[in-house]
Formats: sequence, structure tokens, C-alpha cells
Amino acid sequence: MTAEPPHTGPKPGSPLGVAAIGYAFMGKAHSNAWRNVAAFFDVPAVEQKVLVGRHAQEVAEAATRYGWAESATDWREVIARDDIHIVDICAPGWLHAEIAIAALEAGKHVLVEKPLANTLAESEHMVEAARAARDRGIQSMVGFNYRRVPALAYARQLIADGRLGTVREIRASYLQDWLADDSAPMTWRLRKETAGSGALGDIASHAIDQVQYLTGTTVTEVSGRLHTFVGRRPGPDGLEDVTVDDAAWATLSLATGAVASIEVSRVATGRKNSLRIEVYGSAGALAFDLERLGELEFLDATAPAEEQGFRRIVVTEPGHPSMDAWWPQGHMIGWEHTFTHQVRDFLVGIRDGEQPAPSFEEGLQVQRVLAAIEESAAAKSTAIQL
Amino acid sequence: MTAEPPHTGPKPGSPLGVAAIGYAFMGKAHSNAWRNVAAFFDVPAVEQKVLVGRHAQEVAEAATRYGWAESATDWREVIARDDIHIVDICAPGWLHAEIAIAALEAGKHVLVEKPLANTLAESEHMVEAARAARDRGIQSMVGFNYRRVPALAYARQLIADGRLGTVREIRASYLQDWLADDSAPMTWRLRKETAGSGALGDIASHAIDQVQYLTGTTVTEVSGRLHTFVGRRPGPDGLEDVTVDDAAWATLSLATGAVASIEVSRVATGRKNSLRIEVYGSAGALAFDLERLGELEFLDATAPAEEQGFRRIVVTEPGHPSMDAWWPQGHMIGWEHTFTHQVRDFLVGIRDGEQPAPSFEEGLQVQRVLAAIEESAAAKSTAIQL
Amino acid sequence: MTAEPPHTGPKPGSPLGVAAIGYAFMGKAHSNAWRNVAAFFDVPAVEQKVLVGRHAQEVAEAATRYGWAESATDWREVIARDDIHIVDICAPGWLHAEIAIAALEAGKHVLVEKPLANTLAESEHMVEAARAARDRGIQSMVGFNYRRVPALAYARQLIADGRLGTVREIRASYLQDWLADDSAPMTWRLRKETAGSGALGDIASHAIDQVQYLTGTTVTEVSGRLHTFVGRRPGPDGLEDVTVDDAAWATLSLATGAVASIEVSRVATGRKNSLRIEVYGSAGALAFDLERLGELEFLDATAPAEEQGFRRIVVTEPGHPSMDAWWPQGHMIGWEHTFTHQVRDFLVGIRDGEQPAPSFEEGLQVQRVLAAIEESAAAKSTAIQL
Amino acid sequence: MTAEPPHTGPKPGSPLGVAAIGYAFMGKAHSNAWRNVAAFFDVPAVEQKVLVGRHAQEVAEAATRYGWAESATDWREVIARDDIHIVDICAPGWLHAEIAIAALEAGKHVLVEKPLANTLAESEHMVEAARAARDRGIQSMVGFNYRRVPALAYARQLIADGRLGTVREIRASYLQDWLADDSAPMTWRLRKETAGSGALGDIASHAIDQVQYLTGTTVTEVSGRLHTFVGRRPGPDGLEDVTVDDAAWATLSLATGAVASIEVSRVATGRKNSLRIEVYGSAGALAFDLERLGELEFLDATAPAEEQGFRRIVVTEPGHPSMDAWWPQGHMIGWEHTFTHQVRDFLVGIRDGEQPAPSFEEGLQVQRVLAAIEESAAAKSTAIQL
Repeated sequence: MTAEPPHTGPKPGSPLGVAAIGYAFMGKAHSNAWRNVAAFFDVPAVEQKVLVGRHAQEVAEAATRYGWAESATDWREVIARDDIHIVDICAPGWLHAEIAIAALEAGKHVLVEKPLANTLAESEHMVEAARAARDRGIQSMVGFNYRRVPALAYARQLIADGRLGTVREIRASYLQDWLADDSAPMTWRLRKETAGSGALGDIASHAIDQVQYLTGTTVTEVSGRLHTFVGRRPGPDGLEDVTVDDAAWATLSLATGAVASIEVSRVATGRKNSLRIEVYGSAGALAFDLERLGELEFLDATAPAEEQGFRRIVVTEPGHPSMDAWWPQGHMIGWEHTFTHQVRDFLVGIRDGEQPAPSFEEGLQVQRVLAAIEESAAAKSTAIQL
Repeated sequence: MTAEPPHTGPKPGSPLGVAAIGYAFMGKAHSNAWRNVAAFFDVPAVEQKVLVGRHAQEVAEAATRYGWAESATDWREVIARDDIHIVDICAPGWLHAEIAIAALEAGKHVLVEKPLANTLAESEHMVEAARAARDRGIQSMVGFNYRRVPALAYARQLIADGRLGTVREIRASYLQDWLADDSAPMTWRLRKETAGSGALGDIASHAIDQVQYLTGTTVTEVSGRLHTFVGRRPGPDGLEDVTVDDAAWATLSLATGAVASIEVSRVATGRKNSLRIEVYGSAGALAFDLERLGELEFLDATAPAEEQGFRRIVVTEPGHPSMDAWWPQGHMIGWEHTFTHQVRDFLVGIRDGEQPAPSFEEGLQVQRVLAAIEESAAAKSTAIQL
Repeated sequence: MTAEPPHTGPKPGSPLGVAAIGYAFMGKAHSNAWRNVAAFFDVPAVEQKVLVGRHAQEVAEAATRYGWAESATDWREVIARDDIHIVDICAPGWLHAEIAIAALEAGKHVLVEKPLANTLAESEHMVEAARAARDRGIQSMVGFNYRRVPALAYARQLIADGRLGTVREIRASYLQDWLADDSAPMTWRLRKETAGSGALGDIASHAIDQVQYLTGTTVTEVSGRLHTFVGRRPGPDGLEDVTVDDAAWATLSLATGAVASIEVSRVATGRKNSLRIEVYGSAGALAFDLERLGELEFLDATAPAEEQGFRRIVVTEPGHPSMDAWWPQGHMIGWEHTFTHQVRDFLVGIRDGEQPAPSFEEGLQVQRVLAAIEESAAAKSTAIQL
Repeated sequence: MTAEPPHTGPKPGSPLGVAAIGYAFMGKAHSNAWRNVAAFFDVPAVEQKVLVGRHAQEVAEAATRYGWAESATDWREVIARDDIHIVDICAPGWLHAEIAIAALEAGKHVLVEKPLANTLAESEHMVEAARAARDRGIQSMVGFNYRRVPALAYARQLIADGRLGTVREIRASYLQDWLADDSAPMTWRLRKETAGSGALGDIASHAIDQVQYLTGTTVTEVSGRLHTFVGRRPGPDGLEDVTVDDAAWATLSLATGAVASIEVSRVATGRKNSLRIEVYGSAGALAFDLERLGELEFLDATAPAEEQGFRRIVVTEPGHPSMDAWWPQGHMIGWEHTFTHQVRDFLVGIRDGEQPAPSFEEGLQVQRVLAAIEESAAAKSTAIQL
């Protein structure tokens, strides 16, 4: 728990300078976290220095709106600046590896959105860079923000405390419907070259990370299936082929002997952003739905049978993870503060010289599971060892 | 627990002969209970002898359909029969007193649908008749069937066991919507002469009985309000005046110092048959909704704050009241079996020579609360002592 | 819709004589249906003639309790009786084929509990017998009782009416927990020789039948997995090997291009009898849970986006399937009346000389899917064509 | 919709200077709104100038943490500053009148937390001051923040659009449990001199404002009741008398003929912050619970009976009030952004020279209802005209 500052850190007493790359959905959400983290948590002081994007005028407007002192269009120049100590990468997946490796080599702490990268090879290079940087006191982290939902952090704690006994089955699904309409247009997210995969990489990655995070174990074998329900979508010059999956299914064997099932979809009509997780153990069970992210259902099977039932815990007590920083009981916080908590943990890791979780290695492990699902899907769902 | 048979009972070894009066909604529900009770519970043998109704052909058809050996149109003749030992009164409220008193005087055990009667005076006469009969070993009971919902019986048990600590507040509402459409026609249920009152007598009676049943105490003071939202409804010869309430509200003081609120309505659009009850005590809380009658929500406030939550108990365990007679866990029984349980308890009371609950006295107590609510409503809601 | 009576039927005007074989859980549930069906539905008259079981005294007591005129221990003798026109088979699966084929050959209408049989070969013989009998006006039916949950029948109707558009994804799970405790004892249900399979045959059969029933299509390919979490359980002489699955998973391709996922378990702590089904189409979605069997959730995606939401339909309106026979709106019926509706449909089929659904052929189709799941599971989940 | 700036406004192009008075719970929540409003909404530029509190060191720390440039201890000095254009009053209720009137007279726009004041007399003086200021282009607003819950704003819109037909009944309850433990200590909130009233002023005020806000009408008559369940609580020198109510009940007549019921409590064990509202109209119904503040239940009674049901609308669509500023569908915002929306509307009112709602007059109207409830409660619940 030594607090030796990274050698490229700010002058003593000065705030850490932050640059964020990307100003769309994720850039907006990360900016919100940087702007608010210090109002709620005790973290090293930070300064929102630069927001980086491709279009000069748009990124300048976004910078003003989201609280950044400046904007820029060339991430390489920004990474080279002495007053930047943290690089937060919200750019699309195909840029992750290049930016993250360059930033780590330049001695910047790096937070990168999930998934770690679009390919296994890129992910492995990023892990190498992160390891080398870590030896020099530079931290890195991949942004599986749902680990910071207080209800899920509390779920992990209950499992770790043995309240579920031996975990046997996990059901994880992540259902959305933004592609349910088959006239929804073609985008870069629906091309394999740019997106890597579809629902699999985008949202199954979250589900898989949760399975491993909640149970503290790893996937050892997978059987998977991918499907594209709407094969062609309108582009500017007519219908184009969708080359990624709309939906994915998998069963996962875990190192502990538990079995998890995964189902993700972008065409599940009526489900807006429904990450649901159920965990069944020998002594209890849990259920969670991101559409009610302030609640956790818990069943204690050690109680008399007559008294058992899934109890709806409103996760807003001071004793719940992260919640003492916010409002009195019963006052819900929003989805966006998963990012606030993420930035807090990242900054605490930097301050204490300790690897914040999830590390790039953990991000790589998720990528390996995703790759195995693709491999199994291409082989008629035949199970693949990891 | 002496098992001395009533002196007017059947010959030893012969079944008790039952007559039911009324073959509409309640007659159908009670018939179902008589037809099925012995398949699930150990009760004295009964025989469905006669179904009584005003229209000869219709009641004959109903008798065949619902499992009765005969039908009849004159309840006085039926009551006089030696082979009838039980009279089950499902006729409208204005007939309750006359039939019940005659049957009790004829030495028949009497089960009467709620409310006990349309007026306090009638109710008092019925209580006198019941007391006199009881001294001769004749039992009587009023049919507040919701006492036999297993989830509510279990709720009472949790409260009696002290699991809620001191009960402070009770919220009871009974919302229906069959009069929400203002073109719904005029009926006898909407005239004061025939119905006594509207939502008040019909459904607030259930809510008030539950308040007293669950907490084991009585109402000592009320403030009430009545309202008719649709004042005129179409009759055969044009619009007629509705002379009973569509909705009623009350606050009730209980002898223990607890306070209950009551709200009932027949114009609560979208609520089909929603008797909801919440009980808040110093150490726990309960919530119930008749639209999910197989569930009870229970919160144990003695658990650590982080672990508290309303738990949804699926009330189908063998250890739950009445449930060991039915199906394995998780297999729901229907609303109609509140009547099956009611008949079981009535028969057990007859067998054991013990007053089954609720007695006519308890029915009268509910009538007194209803009368006080009417009195308060007529006096600008000023509180009335009972 | 000709109403020519089967040649082996009762004398004109006489009731159909029924014999039921088996008096445990299913025998009790089927008896309840026979005892009550005519009180609610217009069906040919039936008489509960004989209840058949192995233990003379126990079956005699059960017969009395459940409303049967007689009891017997030899099903062959009963099948031979002239006054028996219907044979209802509630015996364990390994007896289905022998009894059903003998009864059909004897000219009796046959209702057999699901699954159709323990093996594919037996199932195929039963189908042959059913076809031959059908040509002689003898009807047969397999008891997938959940088709008669009004909410699921209504779901099928909404799908058939196009309210969901093109169905794409179905999620079906059936979770129970009666084996969650690893000290639960060994039984015949946990041995492959007697039970055929575990959760797969017992409850996945229901889920698979629902997938096909709701969508009106058939499974064409499966990938499956089986798992036994508790491999040894206490028998009378010490621990014994469990030789069937505790849980099963599958993905199913349907002939229409839809994909279904199945997950079933007997160790899902806290889930008592939770058959959950979600159906996602291009224009709407449905969700159902057997633990709330009187409700159906429906989302109409053709409404304006702001107004969309899963609506909780309380399936108790007169216009809902089977519900006009029961109680007013908002009054729930229980799980047991899925069997009452089943018997009604069986009797109507007999009366009208039309094959009631599901036929033995449909039962065989489910068996084929189950067999393919087993085959896939034995081959590392590799997909199997049907 | 003229945009003439207030004569005491900032120099053209300069931001409006804001001072907030109070840095406890409400001060923290309001600060969060000021810090973030411009990141999401197009509003006049603001600067968080001064945070004011009694304790110099604590308020200085809070100012730093919550994003204020300075702190101060004397609100009179702050109000006198030329660079302050907006005064946001988060101090306890007994200070509202003095500060608000002084600030308005000094030409500052004033936002004051609810309830408007502790007494009717103070409230009336505040209204006079607000009217005088309004004539000079100075705006004022009372902070009933729950009007800015998007689900409730959408509810109001559905009602205004006639989707509920004629509103007949409203059930509003606000249940908390922070006083359920009778060893919870004495505070200023439990003394009549400092708090004015208990649950009534604190949370019934929200419920009453919602009743009027949602229906667009006003209360004309009330019957009320107050109760203190725990009469003495531990102070520093032993038990002290609690002189305010723990719970309150009322029925309200509305000008349109609708009737509302109110129940509020601080001893409703297990309810953390549960403002629940149900609205029943002739053509539809709504239900809301603050513990699930991102959802609204809506029933459209003009649909066929079979298709009716309360639909759970996830209020995160771009077309829902305020939601286009935030995240994609299905991503929930937290309770705190009711204040962000409130500040937005306040700033838009200032910019456009239009009275933002709710005005001080509306705040006074709520106070009058509260006073009438107290009067009725003191007169045995006898109804009081407003």
C-alpha cells in the first residue's frame, strides 16, 4: 500500500492531468465521471485537461459542454504532453491497441473502454505493454463498468462471504432491441472489419465478465452459437450485408465446476438494456436486472422453508458498496455513476501504486472466451477448451 | 375438543346433509367447496343434498351442474327437512337474517356469506339466534373467505409470533373496476334498499375484517367518507339514481394503538379484484395483493440493514397454512379454495363442537365499523367512537 | 365436426366410464379434473368408475377420497371391462407404452401423461397404435397440461394473430429446486433405467412442447448439454450413483428460422416451479412465469415508443381462453385446472370425433428433440439435425 | 417569450453568479445540479460562486468538494454582492422567509427548497415579495423536485392529453422508515418550533403537490389525521417529547370532483423512500413508485378487455420528458437529476422572463392544504373547506 507517485506524475500538490479520447456516448459518460468524482469520493485531485476527437469544431463544443479545459484532434500530440498524466480511451475498438500502447509507453496511466480490443492479437500486445508499464509504476485498467453497479458489487460480496454456498448455475442474459426494426440502417458496428463482432463483443463481453467477476473464477470451456436475424440493412447506396451477429448463445464451464449460460441479443423487442443475472448456489440465490439497477434479489436458503423468498434489497444503504458517498437510503443513483465509481477505483489504484481491477489481463481473458465462442459457433457448437 | 354430535345431526356413520340457498356467483363457489373438500381434507362426511333458488328450471340445471342431488325453490321447506343438517346461505344480504334465524331455530348449522346482514338490527338478531343455537350445539359462521387465503393466514401467524414487533400502521385497499364504465347498467346492488351500501358493505367489509383478523384486535374509532362518482345509470326505463357509494375511505383506530387506512372502490380502472394489505410494525412488515394470492411479501427488520428487503414468499410449502393438502411446492391453488378451506373449518367446528371463526359476533363487529363509517361520512368525516 | 360416437362408446344417453391408472401426484390432479370438469364446461357426461394402483388398500382409500366408484389393482382387467370407455394413464413413464397400446387395442380412448414414454422406440409404437385406433374412431392425447394455462393459450393466440410479427427468439427455462439440497435421497427418478432421463425428460419436455406449441412450428436442429451437480445421493444402504441429469441446456433451431434457448434445472435454489417463457418477435414480445400463472406480459411494439412497455395482463377476462367458465374478472384459478381444461378438450375431441391436441405424434416429436439433445450432449454439444 | 434580461443580471456574455445557502443533504443535491446542468441542457451560463453555511471550516470544505469558487458564513453579505444573481436556499424551513424576501428585495432570482416556509403567515409574505419582484423581472420558484421526475412529468402529460379520461381517484402515499426504530434520537426535525410539522410538512407536501400537479387542479376540502407513534425519543440529557407527527392521513376533494387519499409515514418499516402514486380515470390508470423512479405503469382502458394491463414503461426514450439529454434507451438516471431538471427550468424561466413553475403561489397553496389538514386533525377529522 505504498503511495510512491508514478515517475511521470504531476508536481507534488498539483492535480493529475487527464485527456479523454472520444466524445460520443462513452466520451460523454466518462466526462461526467471525471467532472463529478471528487464531489463524492476522496481521490487524488484531477484536472479535465483535453478532450480529443476527429472533428475540430464538434470536439471543441463537446469539451466546453463536458467540462474540459481544451480540445484537440491529434491524440499523439496530446499523449506527448507533460501535463497529461492519464489517458482515457473512449474511441472505437479498432483504435484501442494503438492508442493504449503508445500512451503506456509515454508513461501515462491508461483507462480503456471494453472490449479490450477487436482481436486477440491486439489484446495480447496491450497486455504486454501494460505489464511493462506496471513495472514502471504506470497503471492500466479496462472499463467493465458494470462491476461498479453497487448491487452487483454487493452480489459479489455475498457470494464471496459464502452466502450462496457452492455456486452451481449462472444465467446471464443481456437483451437490447435497437436492431429489432429491420429497417434500422447499416453502421460500422454491423461490419466485421470495424466492429470485430456484434452482440457478442459488445454485450456478451459484459455478461462474461460478470460471470467471472461475481464468482471469482474463470471459464474453462465453451459451446457457442451466433445468429444474424436481419442479414441485410439499408446503407446510403442500398442494402448492405450485415457481417456480425445479432444474437449469441453460449454455455460456459467454470473452473469451479459451475455452469453458466449466456444469451445476448440486439433484437429482443421491448428489452432496452436488460442485463439480467441469476446465480444459484447450494445455500442461496441471487437475481439482478440492469433495468432496475438499484435492486438486488437475494434468497437465503438456510432460513426455514416457509420463510424463504427472493427479497428485493434496495441497494442504497450506507453499508452497501460505494453508497455511503451518495444520498440517504432509498434515493437511487443512475447508470452513469458506474463510471464515476470506475474512475474512483482507477485513481485510488494510481495513488496507492496498485493495479486497479479489471486489469488488461482480465480483459484479455474475456477476449479469449469470446474467441472460443466464435470458434465453437463456426464448428456447429462443438465445445472448445480454453 | 369434545366430539359430542349435535342433537340434530345425522345418524352415526351417515353423512351430514347440506342445503345451499343461492346459485349465482357465490352459490357456484360454495358448491365447488362442498364438492371438493373431502378430496383434500379430513372432515366429517357430507352430502350435497339440495340447491335452493327462486327459478325452478334454472336452479335444477345448476344443481345438476354443481353436484347437488336435488333442487328446490322454497327454502322454508328445505330447512324443515330432517335430512338437512347444514344450511349454507348464499342469497343476497337482505335475506340473510330471515333465513339464518329460521335455520338456526330449526337446529341447522348455518354458514352465511358476508356481510352478515344489510342492517345492524338484523345483525344483532342473528347474533342472538346464533348464541341460543350454540348452547344447543348448533354452529354458525360468517363467510369472510379471505381469512382462508393461505398467504393471509400465514401473515396472521407471523404477526402473532411477534415477527413484526408492535404493529403500527395498516394500509388496506380493495379496488375493483366493474363500475368504471359509466354506461354499466343499474342493478339491485346499486340501490340502498336492496344492497344496504355499495363498495362499503361489499368490499370494505373484507378489508375491515382483515385488519381485525390479522392483528387480532378491534376497531375503536373511525373517520370515514363515501362518494358516488357515477350518480345515474341506465335502467330499463332510462337513467336511475345510484343510491349507494362507488368508493369509500376510512381511517380506523385499533384498540392496540395502531392506525389503519381503508380505501375501496368499484371504479378503480384496471384493478380487477385487488385487495391489497400492508402491515408495518416496529420489527418487520408485510404486503399482500389478492391479484397474486399465492404470494406474501415479508420484511424482517431485525436483519442487518444491508440484507433487508421485502421477500416474495411463494406460499405453497407444506408448512404453510392449509397447503400440505394440495400440490407440491410452487403449484398455485386458485381463489375458489378459500371457500374449500372455509367449509373445512366449518365442518371441523361442527365435528369438534367448537365455534368456528369468524362467528356471527365477529360479523356483527364488522357491521358496527361499517355503520360508524356511514355515520362519520354523514357528519363531514368527524371521528366516531365505537 | 361430425359427432358420430365411437363404436365402443356407452349406450346412448349413458355417461362415458373412466378408469385412471396411478394415484400419486398426477393421479390426484387428474382425478380432480374428472370430478370437476362438468361443473364448469359443457362436455359429454362422464363417470369416475375405477382408480387403479398397485397397493390395494392405498388405492381404495385414494379412490374414496378422489371420487372414484371403485378401485382395482390389475389394469389389464380394468381395460377389458365394457363399462370403461376412457383410460387415463398417470403411471410412471416406463409403463406408458404397454398400458396405452393395450388400451387403444381394446378400443378405449387414451389420455397419457407426458412424456409420452421413456424411449423413442416405445413412443413410436404408441404412435402406431394411436393411428390404428384413430381410424376406428378412438382418440388419444398426451398430457402436456401447460398448453391449457389460459395465459399460454392466449399467448399462442396473440402469436397466431400476428401480434408479435415474425418470431425470432424464444427463451424458455423451467427451474425447480427440489434437488438443491445434496442430502435429498436417491429415488427411482434419479436412475436412468427407470426415469429415462432427469430434468431433461421431466421438465425440458414441457419447455420444448411450449416452444413448438406457441409458435406452431417444429425444431429442426439442436445443440445440448447435460450436467449432474450432485453425483451421489443417500440410498437405504449408503450413497448411490445418480445416473440422470440435474440440469440441461439447449439451443434449438426452428423450421421458421427462429432460435430458442432452453434451460432446465432441479437445483435452482429458490425456484419452486418456475417455467418461464419469453418470446421476441419483430412487432412485439411476450413473457410468462408459471409461478404467476394467471398473468401474461405483452409488449406491443407497434405503439409509439414512449407508450411501449410490457403490460401485465391479468388473464381472467371472459374473453380469455377457458376463462368464461370460471369466476368474475380478477379471480384466479389454480394450477390444477390446467388438467380440467385438458380433460375438457379430450372429451370434446371424443364427442366430435376429432383428434384432440397434443396427439401422440406431437408427443413423439418432443421425444425426438429430447433424444437429439442427449445425442448432442454426448458429442461435446455438437449440433444434431432432426 | 421575450428574452429581456433582468435589470440586475450579469454583463452581456457573462455567466449568472449563483450563491447557495446550506450545504447539508439538500445543499449537496443542489450543488450537483448546478455543477452538471450545462453539460446536458442548453441553459444560460452559470458560475458556482459562493456556498454559504454557519460553520466556516465545514462550509469551506464543502465548497471545494461541490465545485463552488468560494464559501461564506454570512448570507446577508453574499446577497448584497453584485456578482450574485441567483440565490438558492437550502437552509431549514424556519429561515426560508427571511432569506428569500431579502434576496428578492435585493433583486436576486430565488430558488427555495420545499416546503415554502414553516407557517402560513411566512408563506404569504414570501408570495408578496415574489409578486413584487416578478414585476421587476426577478424570478422565484419553490423546489418540488419530484415534478421533474421524467416518469411523473410524462404521467402529467398523459393525463393532460386525456388518456385517462376523467380522473376520479388518486392514491398518494409517501412512506419512509427512518424513525421506525424507537431509539432513533431526538432532532430539530421532531420539534414543532423548528420543524413546523413532521411527516406532514416534510413529505405530505410532496404528495399534495403531485396530486395538484398531475391533475392540474386544486384541493378544495380536506379531512385529516395526524399521529405520533413514538412520543419520546432520546436526547443528550434523556428522553424528550416528540412534538410533531410521525404519520399523517388525509382525504382531499379536488375542484374537478376527484377525490385523493394521502398517507405519509416515517415509521413504515422497510419503505426507504417510497412515494407511490396511483391515478384512476374513466379511460385509464397510472401507477408510480419513487423506489423505481425510471418506470411508469399505464393502463389504457380503451383497448379490448383481453389486452388491457398495466404496462411498465421504462421512461428513458428520447421522446420522454427531459430524457433526450441523457443516455440511450434503458439507461437509468438517478434521483439527483430531478434537481438538475429543476435548475434547468429555473434558468430557462430567468432567460425567457417567464415565471418558472412551481411558483411561490403554488407553494403557498400546498401550505394551505397542510394547514387545513392540521386544523381538521385537531377537530376529530372534521372536513375543512379551503
